[in-house]
Amino acid sequence: MTSRHFRSSCPIAVVVLLLALFIPSLTAASSGKCRLVRSLRDEIASYRPVVERVLSYVQDKNGYKGRTWAALSEFTDTFGSRLAGTSNLENSIDYMMNSLRAKNLDNVHGERVMFTGWQRRKENAALVKPRFKNLAMLGLGGSVSTAPEGIRAEVVVVTSFDDLSNKSSQVSGKIVVYNQPYVSYSETVVYRSMGASEASKYGAVATLIRSITPFSLNSPHAGHQSYSDGVKKIPTACITVEDAELLNRMYNRGTKLEIFLKMDSKFFTNATSRNTVAEIKGKTDPDKIVLVSGHLDSWDVGQGAMDDGGGAFISWNSLVVLKNLGLRPKRSIRCLLWTAEEEGYIGAYAYLKGHKSELEKFNLVIESDEGTFQPYGIEFHGSETSACIMVEVAKLFDSINATTMQSSKDNVGSDIEVFENINIPGLSLLNKNEKYFWYHHTEADTMAVEDPDSLDLNTAMFAVISYIIADLSVELPKS
Amino acid sequence: MTSRHFRSSCPIAVVVLLLALFIPSLTAASSGKCRLVRSLRDEIASYRPVVERVLSYVQDKNGYKGRTWAALSEFTDTFGSRLAGTSNLENSIDYMMNSLRAKNLDNVHGERVMFTGWQRRKENAALVKPRFKNLAMLGLGGSVSTAPEGIRAEVVVVTSFDDLSNKSSQVSGKIVVYNQPYVSYSETVVYRSMGASEASKYGAVATLIRSITPFSLNSPHAGHQSYSDGVKKIPTACITVEDAELLNRMYNRGTKLEIFLKMDSKFFTNATSRNTVAEIKGKTDPDKIVLVSGHLDSWDVGQGAMDDGGGAFISWNSLVVLKNLGLRPKRSIRCLLWTAEEEGYIGAYAYLKGHKSELEKFNLVIESDEGTFQPYGIEFHGSETSACIMVEVAKLFDSINATTMQSSKDNVGSDIEVFENINIPGLSLLNKNEKYFWYHHTEADTMAVEDPDSLDLNTAMFAVISYIIADLSVELPKS
Repeated sequence: MTSRHFRSSCPIAVVVLLLALFIPSLTAASSGKCRLVRSLRDEIASYRPVVERVLSYVQDKNGYKGRTWAALSEFTDTFGSRLAGTSNLENSIDYMMNSLRAKNLDNVHGERVMFTGWQRRKENAALVKPRFKNLAMLGLGGSVSTAPEGIRAEVVVVTSFDDLSNKSSQVSGKIVVYNQPYVSYSETVVYRSMGASEASKYGAVATLIRSITPFSLNSPHAGHQSYSDGVKKIPTACITVEDAELLNRMYNRGTKLEIFLKMDSKFFTNATSRNTVAEIKGKTDPDKIVLVSGHLDSWDVGQGAMDDGGGAFISWNSLVVLKNLGLRPKRSIRCLLWTAEEEGYIGAYAYLKGHKSELEKFNLVIESDEGTFQPYGIEFHGSETSACIMVEVAKLFDSINATTMQSSKDNVGSDIEVFENINIPGLSLLNKNEKYFWYHHTEADTMAVEDPDSLDLNTAMFAVISYIIADLSVELPKS
Repeated sequence: MTSRHFRSSCPIAVVVLLLALFIPSLTAASSGKCRLVRSLRDEIASYRPVVERVLSYVQDKNGYKGRTWAALSEFTDTFGSRLAGTSNLENSIDYMMNSLRAKNLDNVHGERVMFTGWQRRKENAALVKPRFKNLAMLGLGGSVSTAPEGIRAEVVVVTSFDDLSNKSSQVSGKIVVYNQPYVSYSETVVYRSMGASEASKYGAVATLIRSITPFSLNSPHAGHQSYSDGVKKIPTACITVEDAELLNRMYNRGTKLEIFLKMDSKFFTNATSRNTVAEIKGKTDPDKIVLVSGHLDSWDVGQGAMDDGGGAFISWNSLVVLKNLGLRPKRSIRCLLWTAEEEGYIGAYAYLKGHKSELEKFNLVIESDEGTFQPYGIEFHGSETSACIMVEVAKLFDSINATTMQSSKDNVGSDIEVFENINIPGLSLLNKNEKYFWYHHTEADTMAVEDPDSLDLNTAMFAVISYIIADLSVELPKS
């Protein structure tokens, strides 16, 4: 389809376009050297009336203004947290299925996913020597339980894996507390995911890990962890930044510390859940797909409003906006509300496996899983020419100051990583998410984080981007 | 003493000073029309070398730099929260007494205070209909318990006392949830202090009050409340901003809500505690007093590091700084570490009662109970001429950008209010405490809030201000 359009109408331009497509130095978005042919730039610019219609609609009190927020708040207020494997998540999926059908979206259905689930039961931790102090904590997803009577052990505090290594001779039989500084989520989260296994190598009986956040009001942060092969699985939990610092200070003063830890969790094999699917069928190439997504599951703390209620709801609401405005593109827009993201993209991997035969028809995978704060542009992972196309698309958001287009060499989503890994272009929104990790995986992930106006703009951007890419005469070139 | 100095050395200046002192239009600090006589301005300016010595000392690694923070962290790490009536507070007072003696301060002793104590025992709250949701909560100080089996009742949500009044016919037998917006602490705290009594008038069986804070990570905030005469005492607790908003949304959708509440607390009469006292005895007029203070007790959540560990510790450390530098003023500087502030200035009222005979010799009462963040000036409550003197004192802090002098018509402290009410001038520090109420009365009141450099500057300002006012040739005029 792509080249045919150009061939029939403008053969010289096609040559230029093809040159542009395959000469990286002419199409490098990151260096600002995009040289898309004028006709393609003009074509993208020609969608400006669509952009204006969508933006007007989501900002009109008699239109769609506030409706993403209203739907999300009713959803999270009704169901709260939605851990994979719980009936609560399944009930919320049923609710979504009904909602999507009521909006007259196409092909609404669930697709079954099987996995091994993990569920928190009773747990607590306390400093018991030299004084009693309750430690706010959250067992990490995938952690084994302690013995039923709990563990009481002396404490070794470390500030890094190097520090652990230096203190390795003191660790056997102890509880290791990690008080690593927060650098960035991606750099620091390794302590949550690997801390238990690293300490277990030296004979630690449990680990308590400083929550992965730049700011805390004594808030423990949940999250997933997995054990390395060949090490004993030991119980592991996150404690608060404040308590980790407290323990660190006391330890450095030479005070002998003892902690009591009791954790009980349950693994259940053959848990099932569903990815939730809805579509706007394409007019002329319905088998070609732009996928727009967020995940519906959450951790078992907070309300899953931000992670990832916001992402899921701007995704399906973007389809509803297009539907309501009668905007049906050439290719299909498929909305995916993933399940079991928090346990390691389980829904996305299942989808990848189940849809192998049509993956070559996936033109773009979009996800929002890093906040739905005020958007200011696009983050994109794909070929240089595709990135140049996205630069032109981003320009259309000048009226809402969201024209930044950031080309990334790394994956730009969570679930969609599994598709990006096989060279399908990926996209997410840049948004003012500096405080995202304040709330992430905590009781503070509530509707208070979400702003109605920002949700409207995020919904609009997802609608416009998915519409243009699904409707453009060219598909996004994958190389 | 005041006028004698001027009489002997400069009779004409004294006339001018007396005119300046008693003609308000010439001495209005708030209107920027201060007309202190030059000799007094020069005298205040002559303390600049003292200011420089103190500031150098607290910023010198080989001097006092970081020592207020180090002492405060060791103290709070050792004792944690210090609710009035607990042995923990009494142990921490013993510890302080030993510390103050070890610093060679004068007249270190405790002064006994008796009161009726209140102690939290087990408590919990949950939304139980239409779904189960745990509600993070803190019973308010002074609240009665529920029946041992708890209360389960339907909910009425209100957003103001007017709204309560409008819904009064629906309130009988219900749990009233207050979801009042946060305006400012002083304006909004009335819902915490009076919410139970107001709802009880209409037959409510309990009240849950949105925590008094501009920012929350699902944090419940503790605090004191007292019942009005003649109304039935009903259990009352604070819930989080997020949960109050959640309940409000659900209620406004017409959803029937039921909450379960169970609270157990204990009152104990004849509880005792102590105000902690230390001094630098004045060289020439030791019976004249500049009082510098903070309170040592705290709520039973968090570590009492900010409220009011910081205030208490900059107070006594300011005396240590002066002592270490050999700076002994004419009049005495008395450090008071109040007890039972949180229950309503109980320590301060006891002190006022016990020291009636010497109150006329109190020249200035200073307190820090609103944070020890980066200081930027002085807040003062006193006569216009006194305020003009403080303007000159504040000018001495130009090197640390803390020259703002804000004259207040209202009291400027908490405990010291009881002295300000009888016309003793009061002073506190202006500091960058915009986030104070994020942490106030929560588990997040920890050493993470406190900054070593800011504590040093606060200690230095308390040292300098108390020294100058205790040493100046004139006392602060009270009218």
